[in-house]
Amino acid sequence: MSLKRTLGTCYYPEHWPEEIWAEDAARMADLGLTWVRIGEFAWSRLEPAHGDLRLDWLERAIDTLHRAGLKVVLGTPTATPPRWMLDRHPDMLAVDADGRPRGFGSRRHYCFSHDGYRAEALRITAILAKRFGPKVEAWQTDNEYGCHDTILSYSDAARHAFRDWLAQKYQSPEALNRAWGNVFWSMDYDSFDQIDLPNLTVTEPNPAHTLDFRRFSSDQVARFNAGQVAAIRAHSTAPISHNYMGRIVEFDHFTLGRQMEIATWDSYPLGFLEDRLEEPPEVKRHYARQGDPDFQAFHHDLYRAVAAQFPSGDLPRWWVMEQQPGPVNWAPHNPAPAPGMVRLWTWEAFAHGAECVSYFRWRQAPFGQEQYHAGLLRPDSVPAPGYHEAAEVARELATAPMVEMAQAPVALVFDYASAWAWAVQPQGQGCDYFRLVFEIYRGLRKLGLSIDILPPDTARLNGYRLVLVPAVVTLSEPLKRALAMTGAQVLIGPRSNAKTAALSIPLPLPPALPGLDVTVSRVETLRPDMPLPMAGAGHVTLWREELEGGAEVLDRDADGRPVTMRAGNLTYLGGWPDPAFLRHLVIRACDAAGVATLDLPPDIRVRQAGKTRFVFNHGPGPVTFDGVTLPPAGVLRQGPA
Amino acid sequence: MSLKRTLGTCYYPEHWPEEIWAEDAARMADLGLTWVRIGEFAWSRLEPAHGDLRLDWLERAIDTLHRAGLKVVLGTPTATPPRWMLDRHPDMLAVDADGRPRGFGSRRHYCFSHDGYRAEALRITAILAKRFGPKVEAWQTDNEYGCHDTILSYSDAARHAFRDWLAQKYQSPEALNRAWGNVFWSMDYDSFDQIDLPNLTVTEPNPAHTLDFRRFSSDQVARFNAGQVAAIRAHSTAPISHNYMGRIVEFDHFTLGRQMEIATWDSYPLGFLEDRLEEPPEVKRHYARQGDPDFQAFHHDLYRAVAAQFPSGDLPRWWVMEQQPGPVNWAPHNPAPAPGMVRLWTWEAFAHGAECVSYFRWRQAPFGQEQYHAGLLRPDSVPAPGYHEAAEVARELATAPMVEMAQAPVALVFDYASAWAWAVQPQGQGCDYFRLVFEIYRGLRKLGLSIDILPPDTARLNGYRLVLVPAVVTLSEPLKRALAMTGAQVLIGPRSNAKTAALSIPLPLPPALPGLDVTVSRVETLRPDMPLPMAGAGHVTLWREELEGGAEVLDRDADGRPVTMRAGNLTYLGGWPDPAFLRHLVIRACDAAGVATLDLPPDIRVRQAGKTRFVFNHGPGPVTFDGVTLPPAGVLRQGPA
Amino acid sequence: MSLKRTLGTCYYPEHWPEEIWAEDAARMADLGLTWVRIGEFAWSRLEPAHGDLRLDWLERAIDTLHRAGLKVVLGTPTATPPRWMLDRHPDMLAVDADGRPRGFGSRRHYCFSHDGYRAEALRITAILAKRFGPKVEAWQTDNEYGCHDTILSYSDAARHAFRDWLAQKYQSPEALNRAWGNVFWSMDYDSFDQIDLPNLTVTEPNPAHTLDFRRFSSDQVARFNAGQVAAIRAHSTAPISHNYMGRIVEFDHFTLGRQMEIATWDSYPLGFLEDRLEEPPEVKRHYARQGDPDFQAFHHDLYRAVAAQFPSGDLPRWWVMEQQPGPVNWAPHNPAPAPGMVRLWTWEAFAHGAECVSYFRWRQAPFGQEQYHAGLLRPDSVPAPGYHEAAEVARELATAPMVEMAQAPVALVFDYASAWAWAVQPQGQGCDYFRLVFEIYRGLRKLGLSIDILPPDTARLNGYRLVLVPAVVTLSEPLKRALAMTGAQVLIGPRSNAKTAALSIPLPLPPALPGLDVTVSRVETLRPDMPLPMAGAGHVTLWREELEGGAEVLDRDADGRPVTMRAGNLTYLGGWPDPAFLRHLVIRACDAAGVATLDLPPDIRVRQAGKTRFVFNHGPGPVTFDGVTLPPAGVLRQGPA
Repeated sequence: MSLKRTLGTCYYPEHWPEEIWAEDAARMADLGLTWVRIGEFAWSRLEPAHGDLRLDWLERAIDTLHRAGLKVVLGTPTATPPRWMLDRHPDMLAVDADGRPRGFGSRRHYCFSHDGYRAEALRITAILAKRFGPKVEAWQTDNEYGCHDTILSYSDAARHAFRDWLAQKYQSPEALNRAWGNVFWSMDYDSFDQIDLPNLTVTEPNPAHTLDFRRFSSDQVARFNAGQVAAIRAHSTAPISHNYMGRIVEFDHFTLGRQMEIATWDSYPLGFLEDRLEEPPEVKRHYARQGDPDFQAFHHDLYRAVAAQFPSGDLPRWWVMEQQPGPVNWAPHNPAPAPGMVRLWTWEAFAHGAECVSYFRWRQAPFGQEQYHAGLLRPDSVPAPGYHEAAEVARELATAPMVEMAQAPVALVFDYASAWAWAVQPQGQGCDYFRLVFEIYRGLRKLGLSIDILPPDTARLNGYRLVLVPAVVTLSEPLKRALAMTGAQVLIGPRSNAKTAALSIPLPLPPALPGLDVTVSRVETLRPDMPLPMAGAGHVTLWREELEGGAEVLDRDADGRPVTMRAGNLTYLGGWPDPAFLRHLVIRACDAAGVATLDLPPDIRVRQAGKTRFVFNHGPGPVTFDGVTLPPAGVLRQGPA
Repeated sequence: MSLKRTLGTCYYPEHWPEEIWAEDAARMADLGLTWVRIGEFAWSRLEPAHGDLRLDWLERAIDTLHRAGLKVVLGTPTATPPRWMLDRHPDMLAVDADGRPRGFGSRRHYCFSHDGYRAEALRITAILAKRFGPKVEAWQTDNEYGCHDTILSYSDAARHAFRDWLAQKYQSPEALNRAWGNVFWSMDYDSFDQIDLPNLTVTEPNPAHTLDFRRFSSDQVARFNAGQVAAIRAHSTAPISHNYMGRIVEFDHFTLGRQMEIATWDSYPLGFLEDRLEEPPEVKRHYARQGDPDFQAFHHDLYRAVAAQFPSGDLPRWWVMEQQPGPVNWAPHNPAPAPGMVRLWTWEAFAHGAECVSYFRWRQAPFGQEQYHAGLLRPDSVPAPGYHEAAEVARELATAPMVEMAQAPVALVFDYASAWAWAVQPQGQGCDYFRLVFEIYRGLRKLGLSIDILPPDTARLNGYRLVLVPAVVTLSEPLKRALAMTGAQVLIGPRSNAKTAALSIPLPLPPALPGLDVTVSRVETLRPDMPLPMAGAGHVTLWREELEGGAEVLDRDADGRPVTMRAGNLTYLGGWPDPAFLRHLVIRACDAAGVATLDLPPDIRVRQAGKTRFVFNHGPGPVTFDGVTLPPAGVLRQGPA
Repeated sequence: MSLKRTLGTCYYPEHWPEEIWAEDAARMADLGLTWVRIGEFAWSRLEPAHGDLRLDWLERAIDTLHRAGLKVVLGTPTATPPRWMLDRHPDMLAVDADGRPRGFGSRRHYCFSHDGYRAEALRITAILAKRFGPKVEAWQTDNEYGCHDTILSYSDAARHAFRDWLAQKYQSPEALNRAWGNVFWSMDYDSFDQIDLPNLTVTEPNPAHTLDFRRFSSDQVARFNAGQVAAIRAHSTAPISHNYMGRIVEFDHFTLGRQMEIATWDSYPLGFLEDRLEEPPEVKRHYARQGDPDFQAFHHDLYRAVAAQFPSGDLPRWWVMEQQPGPVNWAPHNPAPAPGMVRLWTWEAFAHGAECVSYFRWRQAPFGQEQYHAGLLRPDSVPAPGYHEAAEVARELATAPMVEMAQAPVALVFDYASAWAWAVQPQGQGCDYFRLVFEIYRGLRKLGLSIDILPPDTARLNGYRLVLVPAVVTLSEPLKRALAMTGAQVLIGPRSNAKTAALSIPLPLPPALPGLDVTVSRVETLRPDMPLPMAGAGHVTLWREELEGGAEVLDRDADGRPVTMRAGNLTYLGGWPDPAFLRHLVIRACDAAGVATLDLPPDIRVRQAGKTRFVFNHGPGPVTFDGVTLPPAGVLRQGPA
């Protein structure tokens, strides 16, 4: 399995005089780009008034790009409904948790549950699909579902849809009351019509209530997207994609992955470092011009797994649809990338299996909200620094060997529903699902491991030698069976299989894994300044479980209490490991699994792609590793040519 | 005066199958429990639809407990009105200061001023009292008034009730305008109907306006509770109680104390440490598994004083109605108590005079909001660590001598109205009434003193040798007379007698105490990082007064300005003392009063109960005191057997 | 040009019994005061019901003051509309960005766009002007426009007025769409009636939209004030003023300056230090009793420039209308001034050219919101410390020579519209226009320079030897011409001339200054913990521009990249300088300009007033400078007597 790699860019013909389109297209082709994404914010120019369609300019733009030899990804423009839409559907707006409608004037101002808007979105999608379906090489639905906290809406539309969803799920209020444990504080309902959304309660609402609202909200996204996919499929055989964002966990991406041929994501390493990571200030300063060394890799692996959900025998198809090419405008601080980082980010994506890396955007826009967001070109059309790095990658691609893809030795299960369960019931400040899983992913990477991410309903673990299942709050039946059958080393916990589907504590107590005599007898959360020392290396922090049972104790804390317990190839971890304890756990598990680890310098990361090993220097200075000195932003390719 | 001590627990028969009630009851009795509180959240099961009463199950539950020899405290279920109540009274919800109704889905979702809901609450109370009045051994009204910030409501019901309250108080808008000083910014009213609640103003509303709203809000709680008490008394002679929470000062507990035979409170040392104390992080870390060494003692003494308000000749009756038995779920971090602390907390309550300590809750609930709140039993009915400590106390109680009660040598006045006045007009960040009084209480305790807390209308100080009156913004006439007549050493101030009842600055200037020629000529508040050094030990911080007058100057700051001034046995303190200055003040006052002080190690506290001295080790390590080494969580009983 | 200096106070006859007015007036005169401001919050006493005028008491108060030889400034009472106004105009309230009306009960509860309220304000102004116009010596309109964040209102009235304002400005929605770049995210409008205020959008609204709303909001203040001025002028020849506040930039003060004879401001050095400055805690602690050593001077110079806008040939007339005389009540902490600071602040204002310094207030009010705000008298009418310092100044004034005024050698351009542009589009946390300009002003002052502040449409720079134009986002045509013609040294940037009037990035790229071949090719913002070291002294921090072009490079960063570039007398600065780099820049520019600098000790500041130099010690200890030791709060006058 090897991969043809391409480059692309995002282009907004509607922003520029038509006279320069052809020159832009020619320059894109000269640069070595293959793909151009267009159209995803153009609704007001495609349909300036309801029913008044103006599609010709878009056709001319597509033709212009095609004439230059470029392929086109056409975006449905549903993330930016025009102003007139609001006159037709005044109640289409999402409502925030404080009860305030989220108004017109930027983007994503719609509620996924609003049927009227959904119909409009399907209508414009069908119109575009019919007109351009035979023409374009790929599709994108909407834009960045979930960006700007837009999944959870507390609108009337959402309220009514939620009631319907609950009625379908539970069939009777009595069943819902039982499932949620509404007897707890006299929260019983007589009718589904009495159930409100779980915001603005006096204190915490029933966590089962909130978790169902989270599930419902995710389902609404899936329904919205499925509608667009169907509308496109009716007229087009081109593959369909959506561009996900970083660390958006409010909807289940695996579900959407099953709907579309291609998964893509928008990779903004510097913005994410400032805006979405818990790292302390000194780490953010260290990587301010490089981005976190693991955050992009994590999402590459995650969205490769999302892509793998599409039912086809092919290699999972995933892209970086928007690659940061210079400073952005939306993070708390917006420095310029260090020289070479745009190239490094591009190669890193390829090393993880990306089919295409597409730079956002072609030319920096001198107006609107993103004026200080760099493009490949400056506003005056002069190439910006990122342009030259893209050109370098294009030259390298022309002669570089294909990137091989192969199954990784290590698998890590990622479960969106667990992110919701932790968010609903964190039990302690800082106890966040993504954070824990990402810290474990980072720990694996620091030991030189390449990782496959797996969805929570994975039924086969064949080929993996080490499988990690941290913090999956409710194990699916397929995964339970797969774990019982696998010969791989399995590291599971903390808080895995800790709850029923209704977010209750199950009996017998967790983790209730067959063959493993371990019981979590008590849970506590710890102040971040009081990590619990282990008898050996490192600490447990934030989340700690008291374990009992007959299984073998592998690790104990300094007071002698068990922290990990094992039976056969199955090890349960009863706490949130700090980096030192995690390192110890992973090394031991890899030894048992026969997986080699590496002692990487702090700024170095590697990725094994088949027989080829890529080495990346994410640090601000040169680093020597394995006898080779990599300059800052250095990319090293080792292995067969 | 000595005391029989008992243990109890909180039980929710409606949460469990009826088949296990009898076994639960038998296990409670075996454990040595005397009391079981039930029913306080069960309204939806007692009356699933309006008028559809289902009381039989509760009767069976009570009978089951009685058959096991247990006594029952029955709670009125008014803290959790069922969902159908909202259909009958859609405007019954409290409204927050931002104007948002506080919706159904958790608990305490009612406004104390809503007459319709109040009538429903009285109705269900009367129903329960009539049916179970002859049967139960005690009552509890509602649950934790004020928890989740539920005293101040900005609803329409509150607005109209406040206008009535003002009309009754002032009789004419002119009188109100004069009292409030509404001329200040043209804030005069022509009619009571023009007066809004003091939220959402452009800048600070008139402090007199806000203070009256605070008084009104406290009165509404008293009226609500008095209604329930009357409804119960009509059918029952059993004593009535309410379970107060920690550091809730939004209503006057002394007023409620006058209504009910028993005062109880809910003691969650670890939750309170994280959630309700200003201590710096290193202190919170030090006591993370022990709780603050003074916070529980303060509330024991406070609620003993509240209990003493009930007009009877008996010993004040007060309990811990809910005692933390393990980790809770609601604080920012929720660690497990150190081994032995559940026992220590229990004995500490007894040492301060508690009649009963009741653990919350019998069995950890696997559903609902408090799944991670420990019980005496785990969800799987296996005893949790707290169970074993409760059992140890039960064994000790069986053979231990009675706890004697005696008047303490030191009295500290606590005034809820002053807490409101400080909150309305703090004059500086961090200037909080409870904080100041609690810091003074802690200073007394660190010197080994036992303390009685007194209400602000105390008329007799007989028997006390040292009386502290810090921060009582307006002295009552009875207290003024008592202070004038007492032979005790009196330490008064800062900010005592500083305002009129309308929160104006009085003339002559404060403190205007007969016989004490001291005038507070100016007030300033200080950054926490600029404490003012004293000429002797310690500093004044946060709040400082400039004093003048002919009284003797006892302490001066490093610039020579007076900080304390004395005439006879009356000493005025013109600033917020830090621990070192406070220690100096207390030692001097105790010397003058002939009260012995102790030089306690930091983690040790003592409580003198008649001739018996209890010594508690609140620290994480062993401590030697008075020749004895106490282990962590150690409890030592010294004195006559 | 030299100046007669006077003192004054603010007095509220309506707060006190009429019997003491005469004594108060006599004491004011005895103290040496000339001016008394009255009336600005008295509407409810002047017109207790609509149309029910009660002006006689005010006339008696004026007469009483006049009889004592005092002059009167009469304030229009429009900052505090009475409660009955709300019954007449229920929708007159401003609305905050969260959509909540800002209610009655304090002050400034009106929306500038509400025509009904505006008519009422003009009506009462005309009534007062007619009755008292012939009588009073000066006027004040309203009170502290902008205090408590009251310029930006999101009311219906504002929405409609904004649409009208936009329609007048753009004439067609198409023109507006083009100017704002609404194509960017399909934000096009078909009609002005579709345009909402830029709050509560899903993510950032179009910055052009927000900037226009800011401009509109400023215009509404100017319109409101102009109405009052016209109403007064119809009946009075007395000069008119408004009392501005510190660091209020939400409306263009220069525009108001053109309307009125006198500019005044309210100087609260200690409150401002705590509440309005970014200084680190150790600096705030150091100056806690002195106030920032530059903040007052900056506003003196700024409001002198505002006053200079009034079209008359006279010396600009500006006052301190409210001078802090002791502790205030509204900052996070409210310490007392160090002894001597009230005198220092007064003399500092005179040194910068103030005509009058008026202390707020005569007597501390024992009721209402400002009970802990000191006056010259205590509530019991005893002189407070500030009284004695005012008396000292009065004695000094009686014998001191006049203060000469002269043009400063250094000019600094200040532009309110740039403050809005930076606020709308900061691009990085901490990137604030006022902060940057004030840091530059402080850097100039630390080198002993005296400064004139200039408005952004300054057309002549004659007489200046150094002109600084930092952060003026769009240069006006007059200023561009003046900069092109001046022989002064000019230091311009960062972010100067960086945007079009519609807040787009212009082509050619900035700064596009004639004769200066410099292009800002890229902008980045930096974490505060990663300042970029210069090759020489200091760092660039927060905001950094990449420069290219043929102009001479003056300074480079440690990586050799240009930071300042020069052609002739014009130097462009491409970053936010830290104090060390700024010092280097200013010293070099002064050397080139032939302006002498001083090496001042940290707490010392000087002000050159003609041939006289004033030296002020702002520190808590004595400081020796130029051979003289100044005590704390010391004021030294050097030069011709």
